[in-house]
Amino acid sequence: MEGLAKIEDLGKPRVVIVGGGFGGLELAKALRHAPVQVVLIDKQNYHCFQPLLYQVATAGLEADTVVSPFRKILDEQPNFFFRLAEVQRIDAGRQVVETSIGLVRYDYLVVATGATTNYFGDQQMERNAIAMKSVEDAIELRNTVLSNFEKALQLGDEEQLNSLLDFVIVGGGPTGVELAGALSELRRHVFPRDYRELDFKQMDIHLIQSGDLLLKGMSAEASAAALKYLEDFGVQVHLNKRVKSYDGYTVTLSTGETLITRTLIWAAGVAGAPLPGLPPECLRKGGRYAVDEYNRVQGFPNIFAIGDIAAIVSPENPEGHPMLAQPAMQQGRLLAQNLENLLAGRPLQPFRYDDKGTMATIGRNHAVADIKLGGKDWRTQGLLAWLMWMFVHLMSLISFRNRLVVLMNWTWSYFTFDKGRRYIIGRTREPVPVEATTEKAIV
Amino acid sequence: MEGLAKIEDLGKPRVVIVGGGFGGLELAKALRHAPVQVVLIDKQNYHCFQPLLYQVATAGLEADTVVSPFRKILDEQPNFFFRLAEVQRIDAGRQVVETSIGLVRYDYLVVATGATTNYFGDQQMERNAIAMKSVEDAIELRNTVLSNFEKALQLGDEEQLNSLLDFVIVGGGPTGVELAGALSELRRHVFPRDYRELDFKQMDIHLIQSGDLLLKGMSAEASAAALKYLEDFGVQVHLNKRVKSYDGYTVTLSTGETLITRTLIWAAGVAGAPLPGLPPECLRKGGRYAVDEYNRVQGFPNIFAIGDIAAIVSPENPEGHPMLAQPAMQQGRLLAQNLENLLAGRPLQPFRYDDKGTMATIGRNHAVADIKLGGKDWRTQGLLAWLMWMFVHLMSLISFRNRLVVLMNWTWSYFTFDKGRRYIIGRTREPVPVEATTEKAIV
Repeated sequence: MEGLAKIEDLGKPRVVIVGGGFGGLELAKALRHAPVQVVLIDKQNYHCFQPLLYQVATAGLEADTVVSPFRKILDEQPNFFFRLAEVQRIDAGRQVVETSIGLVRYDYLVVATGATTNYFGDQQMERNAIAMKSVEDAIELRNTVLSNFEKALQLGDEEQLNSLLDFVIVGGGPTGVELAGALSELRRHVFPRDYRELDFKQMDIHLIQSGDLLLKGMSAEASAAALKYLEDFGVQVHLNKRVKSYDGYTVTLSTGETLITRTLIWAAGVAGAPLPGLPPECLRKGGRYAVDEYNRVQGFPNIFAIGDIAAIVSPENPEGHPMLAQPAMQQGRLLAQNLENLLAGRPLQPFRYDDKGTMATIGRNHAVADIKLGGKDWRTQGLLAWLMWMFVHLMSLISFRNRLVVLMNWTWSYFTFDKGRRYIIGRTREPVPVEATTEKAIV
Repeated sequence: MEGLAKIEDLGKPRVVIVGGGFGGLELAKALRHAPVQVVLIDKQNYHCFQPLLYQVATAGLEADTVVSPFRKILDEQPNFFFRLAEVQRIDAGRQVVETSIGLVRYDYLVVATGATTNYFGDQQMERNAIAMKSVEDAIELRNTVLSNFEKALQLGDEEQLNSLLDFVIVGGGPTGVELAGALSELRRHVFPRDYRELDFKQMDIHLIQSGDLLLKGMSAEASAAALKYLEDFGVQVHLNKRVKSYDGYTVTLSTGETLITRTLIWAAGVAGAPLPGLPPECLRKGGRYAVDEYNRVQGFPNIFAIGDIAAIVSPENPEGHPMLAQPAMQQGRLLAQNLENLLAGRPLQPFRYDDKGTMATIGRNHAVADIKLGGKDWRTQGLLAWLMWMFVHLMSLISFRNRLVVLMNWTWSYFTFDKGRRYIIGRTREPVPVEATTEKAIV
């Protein structure tokens, strides 16, 4: 859309941030006292705390506890402006971004668009799989799981029944592992109470991982413990296998094996979500912008990229930093400082990643944690890791209200073995038509 | 769909309840120890507490606090079976209901399908107005209000701007009054913080009532107080006016006046939602089944109707009982007893409505209540009524968890003047296209 979008001009240098994920939001907040105007553009009006999306998908948390409206988070920051819009293109020559509400002029542009699901070009998979990147994805998965069981009640044919009861999760990273664990808890404690007419021994949860380790990037101890916990919970973990194809019903693995399911969750890859407009040489493999250690896109002194969409390449990080919340937030905070440095004519500070470690939870009392503390590595698995995981995630939520409600939900679930958000509201994935097996007709 | 739906046969008389609103749910619960099989059919998998929907629509409560999944509510009742299905027709000859999952056989059928929005045949209104009967409606209204303001930021033209900022609510019953009050609170306390660039003096809230009293059916004191409170809150109340037409932009009133809005909320009428299949003489004006004082549909000894869909006509209630939660719940409870009486060959008990009174809330510290206690009428308006309203609604919620979360939200909102659920997730009503006014193009 041509024509300038209507945004008050504060008469100060304008920093336009595209995307309010962990990096973009942190940057916007850190610019609170900077002599700039901050314009955040996002296609949602809320920040989403992605690490807990899998709990929304598995009826443990309501969507509203993992999202926070941007306007609310930043309502006391006078230099902050929000626009709900889709960014279509960067026009570096005119120093504008083209958006669905018109052109937005910038003095400094920060691309913080994050990552999107990567199907590696497999269009059939993209059509048939469910992704796990957005709140809407998570709600769709929850609705789909619940309607599967409602439909399963009408089926007599064994294979058809299993196609609705069985789940295949592709990708053994944190999302895949956490989802598999949460589904196994539902199978054990929740679904049998709700669906007494179904036999949940028939419900299989498959987790497919292309390599020989789960939670790649974590320690060998963490990988091994995650595998053991999942197997104890009855998840069928397939290592060293890839999915060759999925038509919405039959999953064919690289080994030739087939699995039957109407619900395949694709957590096997993400790629950067770059914006059109910058020359292709700015982008590296995986759709990430090549940036210098000040997060500056090469060749553009006033365009920056932070978080998943940016790769600061160095001998220690030949692919850039891991696509996680921590590097994104640290880059956001540093960039705020560097923008102030730039305006004040001071030298810029290079980015140094302070890796605090990683964690993943498998189920009640079971998590794995690789912590870096004072230059030392601490590794722990089981109850302690699980308590740490809960504490860290709780404290990372945006508002006190969300922390309180999540804590309440977790405490409740812990003592009742219940996950209460089991309603179907909103979009549901309609499976390839299921032929209902009905009993003999009566005339 | 022909062919029997698959539902285990308990070898006991089967009571099929269509609809899990206040009446149907109460009946299902009250049949807990009866020697029958209870089959509840609903097109949603949850019970919805409609009296608080307006708070979902106005960002005060999250949807999950006003719904409870049927399977969860009744998971400890062995004679209870739930089916997620749409009922298409009653076939009284074969004693089955035709549903989207096949035929469901019944020994006793209870129609508890409630009421639906009544547009009195105005199709243009039906297309352009937003209703307030379901959770999905409430979410759509919340999303639409918020996106209106996001869009308004781009508009310069006064009339276009007002079409997004102004709201017209048709119908001065509890829903209309409560919505108008809640919107006025958002206008005063919440929106100006979120949208500093908009001038909320320009936001008008119109409430249109065809008669000369708000809250028809309540006392004159209650009506007068509701009117005064709304006017104090800056709501423009139009009494003795009807809406003649609405094209999605211009509202034409019976007086010839016009109002401009892209958001008209229709709370002006409900009608019964009867099922096809019974002869037309079973139905009365307003789509309610004519039932005797045992809630039996005339001419069908084993078909009953309860709640909004049923009219027990008597000299005191020539139109049947009011379409409220209380009569529905009382009829559900009595019918459970009467079904047991029927099976035991005992005489049936006739329905006597125990009217406990009605209440409506207008805003913080302001509600009206007409209470009947020990045969006496107590009328109160203001703070005491508001506290009573909160207590009664809180206690009427289904689960302890919902009560706790709602109480927390209310307490929070009371002290912070905030309503936090301001995210756009799910369906949004797209208005008739708005032409954005953009500033001069730059080249």
